[in-house]
Amino acid sequence: MHATARAHTNIALIKYWGKKDDQLKLPCNSSLSMTLDAFYTETKLTILDADQPNRFYLNGQEQSLKASQRVVNYLRVLQERFNLSGNFLIESTNHVPTSAGLASSASAFAALAASFNAAYELNVDLTELSRIARLGSGSATRSVYGGFVEWQAGDSDENSIALPLAEHPKMDLTLLAVEIETAKKSISSTKGMNLVVETSPYYATWVEQAELNIGQMKMAIAANDFSAVGHLAQQNALAMHALNLTADPGFTYFQPETIRAMQLVAELNQNGVECYFTMDAGPNVKILTQLKNVEEIIQRFKNDLPHVKIVKATFGPGIEILDK
Amino acid sequence: MHATARAHTNIALIKYWGKKDDQLKLPCNSSLSMTLDAFYTETKLTILDADQPNRFYLNGQEQSLKASQRVVNYLRVLQERFNLSGNFLIESTNHVPTSAGLASSASAFAALAASFNAAYELNVDLTELSRIARLGSGSATRSVYGGFVEWQAGDSDENSIALPLAEHPKMDLTLLAVEIETAKKSISSTKGMNLVVETSPYYATWVEQAELNIGQMKMAIAANDFSAVGHLAQQNALAMHALNLTADPGFTYFQPETIRAMQLVAELNQNGVECYFTMDAGPNVKILTQLKNVEEIIQRFKNDLPHVKIVKATFGPGIEILDK
Repeated sequence: MHATARAHTNIALIKYWGKKDDQLKLPCNSSLSMTLDAFYTETKLTILDADQPNRFYLNGQEQSLKASQRVVNYLRVLQERFNLSGNFLIESTNHVPTSAGLASSASAFAALAASFNAAYELNVDLTELSRIARLGSGSATRSVYGGFVEWQAGDSDENSIALPLAEHPKMDLTLLAVEIETAKKSISSTKGMNLVVETSPYYATWVEQAELNIGQMKMAIAANDFSAVGHLAQQNALAMHALNLTADPGFTYFQPETIRAMQLVAELNQNGVECYFTMDAGPNVKILTQLKNVEEIIQRFKNDLPHVKIVKATFGPGIEILDK
Repeated sequence: MHATARAHTNIALIKYWGKKDDQLKLPCNSSLSMTLDAFYTETKLTILDADQPNRFYLNGQEQSLKASQRVVNYLRVLQERFNLSGNFLIESTNHVPTSAGLASSASAFAALAASFNAAYELNVDLTELSRIARLGSGSATRSVYGGFVEWQAGDSDENSIALPLAEHPKMDLTLLAVEIETAKKSISSTKGMNLVVETSPYYATWVEQAELNIGQMKMAIAANDFSAVGHLAQQNALAMHALNLTADPGFTYFQPETIRAMQLVAELNQNGVECYFTMDAGPNVKILTQLKNVEEIIQRFKNDLPHVKIVKATFGPGIEILDK
């Protein structure tokens, strides 16, 4: 019994920031993302007899018991859900270069969920797949589909699910992942969002605003309005990073070069090169732009910040089963 | 008829950010400041006959009609209020070095208000002086008194006034003004706060929180609790800068080195050197610390950011009449 699945990572244009249930990973607000073609995880899951030990290989390297724990625990949760047994051989390859500054947990847990479903021949539908991906990592919920995807917050395991908004959008939209820094470990997204939920007096407004933003973003997508998508994504990202400043104690993912990148985006726009930025729980900046502007933006960043790496992406597909 | 007055500038520990009346400069929230000994303006005001032209000298340089307009207009507002006449010779000296990164309008308009009161022998009390200073510049309201000062927001000209909280505080509190940048002109404080009031969905929470912060800060001052004063000041400053990110379009006064300075403050605290930061409508950072830590902090900043200038200050006095 084995199966191999591929899942692409995604970038949230309306961010997930704050959980109302740690176990079920129920978010306080809905989020909306773009699945990315350039970054993905391929995972082969083989079900072993219960007397064989669990083994986890990541990029060809066998992982320690400790490093395997989150993945094995996750698969145990899924086994409980479906009343299944067996141990695991997990072979994952991450095509999410560190230099992209994108979290690989979205693609990793979506690929695990999909390979689990296929290996045990459960034949769950994509909605249920988005639920079980969520149990591994919140953002994995959205990686079940390609294109633009909404993760409806819901208030239970049943209704906290992903929905495809447009699997193959016609929008001319390119993402440039600008690597500011890979070394320094900052506060994890889980720790950051929990601190915000617990201490920021501004959090309730964030939740309200995020729900409004979802509606606005859907309208912008339906109207194929790149400018509105970019502007909304930038405003929402800034609000998320503003929230972090209002936690107690306040904190930030900004690095000095994050500010420089934000200034470069402003300067490019002043020079007629339309682009927007978004940022997750780290210092790296992701530029949203259109094809005609890609080369000029890359050149401008390479001039001003010569050591940064830039990786280009556009819409990617949802979950794929490669082998069974 | 002439008089010379001296007023010191102040740093808000709980910030004024947003007006509910542009003309009367009534703020949306109360603020609380520390008057600073190191930075002040001295202004000699001479009342001239109405047939003599207005003249304004700043640091010994005669100013153009255009550059004099705000000051002359302000004195006209005061003349109307008290039914007075005459033209003006204004001779101001600003001892607020640009390198300190502190606005000189607080000390400038407080000194103008005081010299006006003295030159015309109006003998208004300090409460009325804080009202008329407010008409020149909001933050000038607080420069009427020394030490810790509260500016009660109020809802009319009558009750939007400064009150001294502690004219000669016993607190061991030093401010280090770290100059990040003097050249680049960013969005003015008036423009910034107006954009926030008009567009940020988070503004109502700011107003509520600022009023809470005022109460907390008064308790911390009464308890002579430096740590609480510093922590509250830093949290309040971060919230103000967070608000700016949530305006539409979002903006920031942060420069790359602002982030570096914030990181240095975090690192100093991790090494047992207690200090906090605050920031106004610009990239410069002001460190709040105690005497025993001043030299170590200055050294640390000079090592990491060799080109910055650092100016030291502590509590300064309220308005003084030097000559009549």
